[in-house]
Amino acid sequence: MIQVDLNSDLGESFGSYKIGMDEAVLPLVTSANIACGFHAGDPAVMQKTVQMALASGTAIGAHPGLPDLVGFGRRKMEVSPEDAYCMVVYQVGALAAFVKSAGGRLQHVKPHGALFNMAAKDARLADAIAAAVHDVDDRLILYGLSGSELVKAAGRAGIRSASEVFADRSYQPDGSLTPRSRAGAMIEDEEASIAQVLSMVVKHEVRTLSGEVIPVQADTLCVHGDGPKALMFSQRIRTALAEAGVGIKASGEFIR
Amino acid sequence: MIQVDLNSDLGESFGSYKIGMDEAVLPLVTSANIACGFHAGDPAVMQKTVQMALASGTAIGAHPGLPDLVGFGRRKMEVSPEDAYCMVVYQVGALAAFVKSAGGRLQHVKPHGALFNMAAKDARLADAIAAAVHDVDDRLILYGLSGSELVKAAGRAGIRSASEVFADRSYQPDGSLTPRSRAGAMIEDEEASIAQVLSMVVKHEVRTLSGEVIPVQADTLCVHGDGPKALMFSQRIRTALAEAGVGIKASGEFIR
Amino acid sequence: MIQVDLNSDLGESFGSYKIGMDEAVLPLVTSANIACGFHAGDPAVMQKTVQMALASGTAIGAHPGLPDLVGFGRRKMEVSPEDAYCMVVYQVGALAAFVKSAGGRLQHVKPHGALFNMAAKDARLADAIAAAVHDVDDRLILYGLSGSELVKAAGRAGIRSASEVFADRSYQPDGSLTPRSRAGAMIEDEEASIAQVLSMVVKHEVRTLSGEVIPVQADTLCVHGDGPKALMFSQRIRTALAEAGVGIKASGEFIR
Amino acid sequence: MIQVDLNSDLGESFGSYKIGMDEAVLPLVTSANIACGFHAGDPAVMQKTVQMALASGTAIGAHPGLPDLVGFGRRKMEVSPEDAYCMVVYQVGALAAFVKSAGGRLQHVKPHGALFNMAAKDARLADAIAAAVHDVDDRLILYGLSGSELVKAAGRAGIRSASEVFADRSYQPDGSLTPRSRAGAMIEDEEASIAQVLSMVVKHEVRTLSGEVIPVQADTLCVHGDGPKALMFSQRIRTALAEAGVGIKASGEFIR
Repeated sequence: MIQVDLNSDLGESFGSYKIGMDEAVLPLVTSANIACGFHAGDPAVMQKTVQMALASGTAIGAHPGLPDLVGFGRRKMEVSPEDAYCMVVYQVGALAAFVKSAGGRLQHVKPHGALFNMAAKDARLADAIAAAVHDVDDRLILYGLSGSELVKAAGRAGIRSASEVFADRSYQPDGSLTPRSRAGAMIEDEEASIAQVLSMVVKHEVRTLSGEVIPVQADTLCVHGDGPKALMFSQRIRTALAEAGVGIKASGEFIR
Repeated sequence: MIQVDLNSDLGESFGSYKIGMDEAVLPLVTSANIACGFHAGDPAVMQKTVQMALASGTAIGAHPGLPDLVGFGRRKMEVSPEDAYCMVVYQVGALAAFVKSAGGRLQHVKPHGALFNMAAKDARLADAIAAAVHDVDDRLILYGLSGSELVKAAGRAGIRSASEVFADRSYQPDGSLTPRSRAGAMIEDEEASIAQVLSMVVKHEVRTLSGEVIPVQADTLCVHGDGPKALMFSQRIRTALAEAGVGIKASGEFIR
Repeated sequence: MIQVDLNSDLGESFGSYKIGMDEAVLPLVTSANIACGFHAGDPAVMQKTVQMALASGTAIGAHPGLPDLVGFGRRKMEVSPEDAYCMVVYQVGALAAFVKSAGGRLQHVKPHGALFNMAAKDARLADAIAAAVHDVDDRLILYGLSGSELVKAAGRAGIRSASEVFADRSYQPDGSLTPRSRAGAMIEDEEASIAQVLSMVVKHEVRTLSGEVIPVQADTLCVHGDGPKALMFSQRIRTALAEAGVGIKASGEFIR
Repeated sequence: MIQVDLNSDLGESFGSYKIGMDEAVLPLVTSANIACGFHAGDPAVMQKTVQMALASGTAIGAHPGLPDLVGFGRRKMEVSPEDAYCMVVYQVGALAAFVKSAGGRLQHVKPHGALFNMAAKDARLADAIAAAVHDVDDRLILYGLSGSELVKAAGRAGIRSASEVFADRSYQPDGSLTPRSRAGAMIEDEEASIAQVLSMVVKHEVRTLSGEVIPVQADTLCVHGDGPKALMFSQRIRTALAEAGVGIKASGEFIR
């Protein structure tokens, strides 16, 4: 049976600042990526989000980011592999402590934003992140863009990885995402998005923006929860996957 | 055989900013309290300090503080017990991850500065901190001022504690330290300091500023490493304790 | 003619985090207190809010707070008068630069949250804040709780002050606000709130929670904009004041 | 008479963290670049450094940097021109307020570290920074690497600039500094450094690493104060310049 994980970024509130509809998203996904205080999240938000995820039976991952709260971790920073290693160990350790204190177990690590994007293409940065995840707990699963250096680095580090795909982004012939600055980067049509998801998950292939069909590994699908429309679309994807006979499971249940 | 632990605050550098003489202090103490990034320290400093402590055979503790880098965690802040719980879980988890990634094991937790002082007198804050330590790892030892609420809270939480004493501070009849603002708070004379340490460690009693002799529990002695004079004095204390037949050991080896 | 200023806290968003309904509030008030980056706000938010206020003809004030973003500046911190002086100079200077760069002029300074509350009762802190405002620009008006040390400190520093009153808080016989922890602290009934405002602004007196009528200085009224209900209530207050013949003006136009 | 300014980065301490020998450097330079709290410095340090500079008669400049305290503003960050504009307005305004409150007047602005380096080559970033300086106070002088986009942007913005040169760095044929990663980037020999300074200041030319002689504008020379050796070298440069008949003056006294 084909299986896929649905993941979403949660716990992004900070102090008096609220972002996201975490309570509504949790039942729709199988894995929650919880911010760790560098680009979003604070200790109290982390605790609360971990407790909510455990209560809903959603698997928990750390979502470490660059130390840039005002930029929400989306601005590239020139961090050395050594710095990346340390910031991942720090953030994963902090989140793991909340999970442990609430009686749970951390499943995965998904780097956030610019750190995720830089590590997709920079093998040294990817190796540093994979080593950090390995050294904190070698049973953790590292989430990376399908085909990226991050996924390859997980293999080199001897830890499991989950290859992530996107419903609303078009692909390039080399398997990378079309940059947001280019026309056609976003797939606006929901039917087209769902068709792309089914193709990626069931047939392991995707049609690129320029028309070629290329192979793709689809272990986990990123789902957004920032608004009622996004939530409804996530529900539609769940339904379409189920109708296609795909099992929707947390990555820890099927990734080897 | 009477045993005592010598602890010191280490890993307080931050980015380009250097504080302390960590390499010189490490061989003189049995337990290192390593800053966790809130009042001092950063991920790279934490990693390096953990590695140095492991290399020198010094036991490692987390030294969580208030989120006040510019105030070095020394300014009182109105934090709720819930906030204190979360900030301790976060910081202890982060440091524990560095210890684990370097192949070691965390021994203890010593709250820093204003958090330490507030928790000495505030039972609710002390209970929150003790619960956080317990929930992250119930084998950890909580360091608190001898006779303080923090030590009592450890007992209520079912974790071990180490009662801390000071060589260079005078005591009040109720067992508290004479506030720094009062005359006689600091013991300037080194001979008198060493005599006070021996009395506390060997006889479990201390003569207060006003002359009474009161009982005191002395599991661990705080040692400063901020300058050549402090280092030399720490060496003198080690010698005096050894000559008195006291075993100098990390708290994890003798606290039950 | 009796005149009163209506002020509201604006520019409290931070990076990707949005707080407040600034566009809707601006036309309802005569003075905007704009956060300066310590407890809320960031440089880009400050610029945008200043531009919006200038466009709507609302007078601009700096709203400096404690360096505690996660606590939104609402947690008391043990800051020295010297530290308070410096943090006010810094934040007022930063906001004034945005106002100047946009072609405007800063009108006032209103300390935020815990800094406002601490300075209401602590004369040394209040003097430090008033001195900071004076030293940056002695034409600025300092906003403080009516009858508070902050208002008195403005007088001692030789700068103007605006005495602030609240529509939805009950008063104690000494002129202070009933602490939120006590019953009767909040005035829930809108008619009663409006009656209190009219009494304070027109008759310069207020009936305390225990029934006495005491004198009160009401130069400026704090108005909330956190939700449609608050906005509607602000509109009601404007109407009631206008019907009572009160001129609604920015403090800079009538405070001497 | 040929004139040159000597500038140095000061006020880089933060809270309990001390960096630099500001008291010793101040008498050796004519212009102080004072950190503004983003990459280094805090409000209390800014106040103290401003007071020291005024007391020593050294002209004062703002030294705004990227919001990256742990990286000391030396790591490149992907900041938009809009963000750069706002972070410069904010920091210059904050420092200017300390200068004004101490009875002085801000002379210049020198971007720090990665912001300085990025703006040297990126015309849009340079324009944003020059516009920020212009909008805060159009009498300020913008310091930039000689021949850089920052200097050109000052011209486009209608403000004065000071072209900065370095004693201890070798130059490339296009007038840029040899990257530190390449051999020959640093000029280790003090005699060679002094000869380069004299050539740049007196003859307006410099011999590049590859041997060509190229023209260079030298309004201000960057001087380091991080250690006794650097201080002694600064003194030697002063002496050599004086012997060559060069006037050592703050840029505000001769830049038009």
